[in-house]
Amino acid sequence: MSQAATPKRPLTTLQKGINKKVTVRLKSEIEYKGKMNNVDSYMNLIMTDAEEISNGKIIANYGRVIVRGNNVLFIKLENEL
Amino acid sequence: MSQAATPKRPLTTLQKGINKKVTVRLKSEIEYKGKMNNVDSYMNLIMTDAEEISNGKIIANYGRVIVRGNNVLFIKLENEL
Amino acid sequence: MSQAATPKRPLTTLQKGINKKVTVRLKSEIEYKGKMNNVDSYMNLIMTDAEEISNGKIIANYGRVIVRGNNVLFIKLENEL
Amino acid sequence: MSQAATPKRPLTTLQKGINKKVTVRLKSEIEYKGKMNNVDSYMNLIMTDAEEISNGKIIANYGRVIVRGNNVLFIKLENEL
Amino acid sequence: MSQAATPKRPLTTLQKGINKKVTVRLKSEIEYKGKMNNVDSYMNLIMTDAEEISNGKIIANYGRVIVRGNNVLFIKLENEL
Amino acid sequence: MSQAATPKRPLTTLQKGINKKVTVRLKSEIEYKGKMNNVDSYMNLIMTDAEEISNGKIIANYGRVIVRGNNVLFIKLENEL
Amino acid sequence: MSQAATPKRPLTTLQKGINKKVTVRLKSEIEYKGKMNNVDSYMNLIMTDAEEISNGKIIANYGRVIVRGNNVLFIKLENEL
Repeated sequence: MSQAATPKRPLTTLQKGINKKVTVRLKSEIEYKGKMNNVDSYMNLIMTDAEEISNGKIIANYGRVIVRGNNVLFIKLENEL
Repeated sequence: MSQAATPKRPLTTLQKGINKKVTVRLKSEIEYKGKMNNVDSYMNLIMTDAEEISNGKIIANYGRVIVRGNNVLFIKLENEL
Repeated sequence: MSQAATPKRPLTTLQKGINKKVTVRLKSEIEYKGKMNNVDSYMNLIMTDAEEISNGKIIANYGRVIVRGNNVLFIKLENEL
Repeated sequence: MSQAATPKRPLTTLQKGINKKVTVRLKSEIEYKGKMNNVDSYMNLIMTDAEEISNGKIIANYGRVIVRGNNVLFIKLENEL
Repeated sequence: MSQAATPKRPLTTLQKGINKKVTVRLKSEIEYKGKMNNVDSYMNLIMTDAEEISNGKIIANYGRVIVRGNNVLFIKLENEL
Repeated sequence: MSQAATPKRPLTTLQKGINKKVTVRLKSEIEYKGKMNNVDSYMNLIMTDAEEISNGKIIANYGRVIVRGNNVLFIKLENEL
Repeated sequence: MSQAATPKRPLTTLQKGINKKVTVRLKSEIEYKGKMNNVDSYMNLIMTDAEEISNGKIIANYGRVIVRGNNVLFIKLENEL
């Protein structure tokens, strides 16, 4: 099997989303949409130029925010990797 | 006892579901139905072409989403392995 | 003391329930009744031909489902080991 | 100080309750009263011939049930050790 | 600085409360007042002749009960050490 | 950079608050105000002569109480270190 | 790739915010705005001259407070690093 065909481990794929646009939903159901500047294996992540979205409305903007990983429900990659 | 008859450990079976269709229910009762692109032993998982389902209705679609494993209630394998 | 009289550790006993019928109650009070195909020490478990039961009523059927162990409240062994 | 006078560690005392009658209260306030067939250091425990008690009433009976330790609030030893 | 003046680590002080009277408040706000027969570093503890107190009223008595440490909010030492 | 100018790690600073007056707020929003007799890296702490405060009112006094660290929201140092 | 272009790990970036102004939101939705005197990899942090903000209003001031990391939802860096 070629390496290209090998499925990627979730955290490896997550690393490939660095510097791409993502939407992060927290357990509290609040979402942050912006550039994922970095992320580690605990899913601690830095976002830049992030919109905070609650019930589909932008309620705040953040230049740079570090989210503690244990609050993350999911991370949606907005673009192809 | 032959190896074929040995029961599979849960996480080994889960690996066999990679690239198959699954339904993932989270503790919040929301479900994600799509292809399980990958999964690790913590149950972090990547889903592609996933439908988000709440109370039996599709409420969103995700091209590629990474779910943090600690939110998972169960993973249902939709097909035979 | 003979080995037969030695009490079994809980997780060892649990292993003996593999391929037997069990009822698994989750913290959310939902129950799954079916064959416990496999289980590990974290109580991650695979069930096959499982009924999902809420307030005593069957609300869904699952061909094969993997439950994340941290959600488990108890596992009831339906038969003698 | 003689060994008899040395206070027992909690988990050592718990081991001495094996095959004795106990009442286990879970965080959900439900209680299980029966024989503690075995227990480990995580307080995973096997109970046999257990009554499930809610608000002082027996609501179910279990031949053999394995409780996941993290749900336990306390274990009451019904008899002298 | 003399050893007598060195502040005691919390878990060391807790050990000195063994066989003394304590009040243990759990996260659920229920309290147990009795002799702390033993305790470990996880705050698992054995109490003997314990009163269970809710909203200031004694609602039950326990000859010997083992409380799982993760439920503990605080332990009040009733007497000087 | 001189050592005096090096920022202190949080747990090191916390150690410097030993034998000083602190206010400890728990997740349950109850506060304890008194002398922090000792504290460890898990934030288990011993308080002496502590007032228990709820909604700004003193509701109890404790001669010596050991708080389990996982309940702590924050520790406020009342004085300069 | 030059080192300057390498994305920073989240906890490394966090260290660079030391002695800068931050807003820390806790899971309870309360926010603390002030100087982040120090922080460790668990996100335990010391804040000085911190305002406690609830629903957009300042409800208290803290000269020096140590927040237990597990309560943190996110840390917003108020200025460029």
